[in-house]
Parts: sequence; structure tokens; C-alpha cells
Amino acid sequence: MSKIAILGFGTVGSGVLEVLRTNAALATRRAGQPVEVKYICDIRDFSSHPDAKLFVKELDPILNDPEISAVVETIGGTKVAYPYVKAVLESGRHVATSNKELVATHGAELLALARKKGVCFLFEASVGGGTPVITPMYQCLAANVLSEVHGIVNGTTNFMLTKMEHEGMDFEEALKLAQSLGYAETIDPSADVDGIDAQRKICILASIMFGRHFYPKNVRARGIRDVSVKDIALAKCQNAAVKLIAWAKQTENGPALGVEPMLVPQTSQLAGVSDVFNAVMVHGDMLGDVMFYGKGAGKLPTASAVVADVLDALRNGGSIQESLFWQDSEPWEGTYEDSSSSDWYVRASGDTAAAEKVFGTIEILEESADEIAFTLREKSDAECRELCEKARKENICVKNVLKWLAH
Amino acid sequence: MSKIAILGFGTVGSGVLEVLRTNAALATRRAGQPVEVKYICDIRDFSSHPDAKLFVKELDPILNDPEISAVVETIGGTKVAYPYVKAVLESGRHVATSNKELVATHGAELLALARKKGVCFLFEASVGGGTPVITPMYQCLAANVLSEVHGIVNGTTNFMLTKMEHEGMDFEEALKLAQSLGYAETIDPSADVDGIDAQRKICILASIMFGRHFYPKNVRARGIRDVSVKDIALAKCQNAAVKLIAWAKQTENGPALGVEPMLVPQTSQLAGVSDVFNAVMVHGDMLGDVMFYGKGAGKLPTASAVVADVLDALRNGGSIQESLFWQDSEPWEGTYEDSSSSDWYVRASGDTAAAEKVFGTIEILEESADEIAFTLREKSDAECRELCEKARKENICVKNVLKWLAH
Repeated sequence: MSKIAILGFGTVGSGVLEVLRTNAALATRRAGQPVEVKYICDIRDFSSHPDAKLFVKELDPILNDPEISAVVETIGGTKVAYPYVKAVLESGRHVATSNKELVATHGAELLALARKKGVCFLFEASVGGGTPVITPMYQCLAANVLSEVHGIVNGTTNFMLTKMEHEGMDFEEALKLAQSLGYAETIDPSADVDGIDAQRKICILASIMFGRHFYPKNVRARGIRDVSVKDIALAKCQNAAVKLIAWAKQTENGPALGVEPMLVPQTSQLAGVSDVFNAVMVHGDMLGDVMFYGKGAGKLPTASAVVADVLDALRNGGSIQESLFWQDSEPWEGTYEDSSSSDWYVRASGDTAAAEKVFGTIEILEESADEIAFTLREKSDAECRELCEKARKENICVKNVLKWLAH
Repeated sequence: MSKIAILGFGTVGSGVLEVLRTNAALATRRAGQPVEVKYICDIRDFSSHPDAKLFVKELDPILNDPEISAVVETIGGTKVAYPYVKAVLESGRHVATSNKELVATHGAELLALARKKGVCFLFEASVGGGTPVITPMYQCLAANVLSEVHGIVNGTTNFMLTKMEHEGMDFEEALKLAQSLGYAETIDPSADVDGIDAQRKICILASIMFGRHFYPKNVRARGIRDVSVKDIALAKCQNAAVKLIAWAKQTENGPALGVEPMLVPQTSQLAGVSDVFNAVMVHGDMLGDVMFYGKGAGKLPTASAVVADVLDALRNGGSIQESLFWQDSEPWEGTYEDSSSSDWYVRASGDTAAAEKVFGTIEILEESADEIAFTLREKSDAECRELCEKARKENICVKNVLKWLAH
């Protein structure tokens, strides 16, 4: 019998209890022994909960119980989760977490601690929710040098963009709907709509890919606030969909990372990924492209990935940690920029002549009385930003600029 | 230093050597030690090969060398591969293979032997080539009861169907092209075009899913020989693509399995899978649908999956085998039939009146002077077969019958 504890009894934490109980026979088979939740740590009052006797308000009873061999962290954030996870690993127990902020901020340190203690620190659920992404990347693609990863890693914004595309909703309407369905935070939806969630996730994937830690503050992230129904319609005319893409790649000048809404051609598998689904495309030197697709969030999907990690830790112990490991990076103030060239979609005020004066050769997509949309070929991110800056100085209002996903 | 042997130096076997050498540093990191190929066993003459000194013609030198800890089997077929793999497992070495025929025919026995000996028998490359499917299924989805798996698991026929759809080639033309590109066997392409390869692969996936062995002879398989450009065009009018689908699901009456060309609605991620790509959709009770997509064949992709298995075995040893295990099944003569209802596409000679007389209520898709195409709703496989039989007795020539993939 393996006994575990759950830290944080919110959506995912309560899902972990449910998954372990619903599929107890399966868990026993996979872990090689029955798995029982002995403690649930949460500062809130659960005295009338059917499992009230499992609840504790502090970590100490868990740390002091020699029967506990693994701990699930589903508190979220870093304020409590970070010291708690550190203490659990220090005490020689495995940790499985769904907390992307924790991994993106303290991953390298916690991995080193886990390695030192011979235990596991696993976090499959931190990217893609229940969809397997991290394990296939470091395990199944172990014989490949990974040169690029890009994908749709935020289900909330993908749901909103789908509604904008299929039902013509504007950003505000789509956000309200996402909030009413519980996909986006009601008070402050910025983690989703401003790309902060995606920024954390791409840092985790890049850290696996390059073997060293990438911190969110060094990654340029832009959300979907300025994507309009007009942009989506013009993208459609170009056989493309607008998607919030998180990407990381090896370039001539080293690693480049970013999060931004992009034009994804319909020939890419990512263009057809709709609603709250996520999909991550990984490029390996031997394998070419592979894609992992599934629900990116949700109580039971995410919880099932946390449980799979726990079962893996209980069965295989610290030996699996060696292959999922990355070094820390030196603190640094800049951002990982991509110096390679891309094609761009630009929508701006003015006419062809005014646009050509600033941008040079352009391909017109649509021109109306006061607005123009065009394609700009083969510019780097920096060159494109510079041209837009120049346009603003010429009193051209640049309404949106979106990169084409190379495919 | 880990030393391994490769059995069979064909396409995949030579790829394994290439992957291990090209990504030697990566292999060392993942396996926790350098990995060296010490023997290559092949009955053919490689005396002028740069690695001539590695070649042996028999298994004995490998079995007798205590330095060898893992063996890769890439011979194919079962005549030689089966006794060789058995002997290697018996001797207490790990085996990684890409051989789907071996796994579909002798998987249960070889898994039991590996378990008994405390070593690994791994075969990620046997389904999906380099695309991770098996490992995510048994490891990442470990907390899910799997109720259905379906997908495109044969790249050759998917390439042919893509050419038929996009370029209007007929079956013969598409086959010739696939043969000239090396995707299909020149002498006898039946393993691909008659669904035999897909039949083996779905048996492997079903065995993982249900925890007991499914033998190919108990699975009804139909290939793409009778799919015409006309069928593909009519499917397109219905917003669907014709794809060769291998499927397995839990039904009220137990497991059901099959391989057949189906109409896949464009709303399914599978409809957009083109050329030699494979994609497998798995349904878990906690997770919902997840899909794994990538190249289904090819020297280096497949070899990279075999190498990942070897690295996994060298690092984790026999402990990973416990979760990838299934029992044997009693020998049995029937087939695993699906008794649930589906919608069907039917193309036949005659007119509406004649078709209605046999099939009852139908929805006409197209009617010409001597041919009719229609949709038949809510019939089981057996009911549909019975109706087609009845039609033939009424002198109606049933030209094609394709099931709609439920989505």
C-alpha cells in the first residue's frame, strides 16, 4: 500500500482524489500496489466534507508521517506551493504537480533537489492539461535532438478565437462567454488573454528541449486582446486561422522563444484545433514533426495526468528523474529574440501609397476608404517592429501585425 | 558503457546504428551511460561494410557475450525473429523491436517471458513508426480506463488515398506511385492495401487497452482496393474524407475491433491527416480524446523510436515492464464484431425505387442513369452486410459500402 497526500483541494486537487477512487483498480495495477490518499492539506474549512478526517491545515503532519511516499501539489501559484514542495522533496518524497507557474519559476532548483534526494519531481499536467506532451518529449523522443516546438497551449484563448471565427463574436463577447463557462477568471482574465499562461508553458517546454532553464521574464509574450473579427476574416480569405501560438526554436543565434497570435495556414494540423483543445507540435531531427492533441484543461483530464505521474513515481522511483532534468540558467535581463525572417499580415490606416512609402514592397489583401491590409514578406521580428514604429511616426495607425506560422 | 546488438540490418536496423551514432551524446545522457553497438546479426554479406567487424551471422556470439545488455530486433516477420527474440529474453537481456507482426502474433508470450526474467520487451516503433503512441497510452494515460482507440495507422494507404483525393488518381495509379517511392512493396503490396498491417497494429493497441491479447485472425480487416475516385468525390460533397481506419472499442457485448475504409467527417482531426502521416485517437474516461500524430514509417523516425525504447530499458530496467503487460487469450475462431449502429454510405446500381425496396428509408446523395449513391442510417455491421446480401439477390450491384466514423 502506497500512501500519498494532496496539497490544495481546489479543482485539480479534488479531481486527483476522484480519479484515484474511480479508477482504483487501474491505479493499483499501474503502481504495483494500492494507492491511498491519507492527507489533504488545505487551509479552508472542510469539516463537513465526507472525507473531513483526511484534512489538515499544515504541512507538518504530512512531513512527519513516514508512511507518506508521494505528494501531489495542486495549490497553484508559488507563495505557498514553492516552500511546501521544497520541504516535501527535502524530506525524500516524490512530488507530482500541475502548477506551471511553480515549474516555470523554480523548476531547475526543484529538479536539482529531487535529483539530490533520489526522488521524482514530475509535472506532465503543467502543459496541455491531461494531454501527454512532456513525457513523450523527454522519453519517446529521447533519441532526437529537438529543434523546434510550437503549439496552442492555452485552451481559454483558443476557445475565444474559435467563437470569434465561427460565430463572429468580438473579443469582449468571447471573453464574457469564456468567463461565464468558467474557462477564464472573472476578476482578472489576464493570465489567459495576455499570454502569461502560455509564456510559462513554453518556458517549461523550452527547458526540456534545450536542457537548461528558461525564465518567463526573458520571453516576449503577447495575448489576443488586439485580435479583431476583421483580422480573423482576412486570415480566412488567406486560408489561415488566427491562433495564439507559443513557440521555441533553435536558431543560428541560439534559442528563440515567444508567445503571439499568428496566422496559421489551413495546411497545418494546428489550424483545425478548435475550442478548448490544445495541440503541441515538436520537431525532432530523426523523427520530423509529431503532434500531441487533446483537452488542455479541466478537472478530471488534468487530475488524470497528475495521477499518472504519481503512479510512475511510485513504480519507478528516482530513476526516471535523470532523463527529465535541466540545468539552471544565469539571471539575464533581455528576451530570446528570433532573428530569422517571416511573412507578416499588417492592417493599418491609410492607402497603398502611404503604406508602400514606409514598408516598401507589399502585397495588398484589401483596401477600403480608410484602411488597408497587406502582406509583408521576409522580415525579422525586429525589422517588422522597426517598420511599424516608422509607420506610426508617419501618422499611419498600425491596427494589427501578425506573423505567419512557417509550415 | 552499455553494449547492445542489432538483429537484422535492413532499413530500420541500419537506422538504429545511424541514430545511436549521430545522437551519441544525447543517448549517453538519456541512458545514463554511453551506448555502443557491439554486434550486428545479419545472414547477408556485409564484409565490405565500414563496420564489417561488427557483423555476425548467428545469434550465439551475442548470447554468449556477457557484455551485451540489450538487443534490437529489426528482422521483421516471425520465422527468425520469434525464436531469436525468445532466446534473447531467455538469456536475461532487454529487447526493443519495431516488428508489429511479432508483437501481434507472440506478444503475450514474449511479455510473460520478459516479466519472468525481469527484463523489458518494448515495441513503441511497432505502431505509428516514430510517433509516440504506445508509451503515452500505457504510461501517460495510466489513470484512465480506455474505451476506444481509432486511427490512421498505415502510411502507405493514407498516401494513396491522399493522392486519389487531391490529384484524382485511381487506385492502380496511386499504388504504382507508392511503389515507385518505396512506400509499398513492389511484388506483393497486400500487407498495406488489404489492411493486414493495420490489422496487426490495432491488435497491439487493443491488447494494451484491454489488458489481454487480441490476435489478427479474430479481426475483420478490409483494405482500400475497392475505394474509387467516385467514392472519394461523393464523400467530399458530404464534408468527409475516406480514410483507412483501424478501430477498437469497448461495447455492451465486449471488445469490438476492425479495419476498414471509412467516411471521416471534416470536423474530426483525422480527416486532415494526409500523405504518409499517421494519427491515433484514444479515448480515456477521465481525459476524453487525445490524438498522437506524426510520420508513421521511415528509416530514421522508426529507428529513433526503437532507440528510445533501448535507452528506457537500459535506464529503468524491468520495472517499466509491469505497466506494459497483457495476458494471453484463449484461442478462438470468430471475429470481434461491433453490434452498435452506424450510418453508412452506399453506392449501387439501379434507381431509388429499387434501392428503397431493399434498404428501406434512404437519403439519396446522387442518382444517375445507372447508379445511385445514398446514406443509410443506424444499422449495425451485421444488418448492413445482410441488406447488401439481399440487394445482390435482387440483382443490385453494390459497388461500395463505407461506414461513417462517429464523431
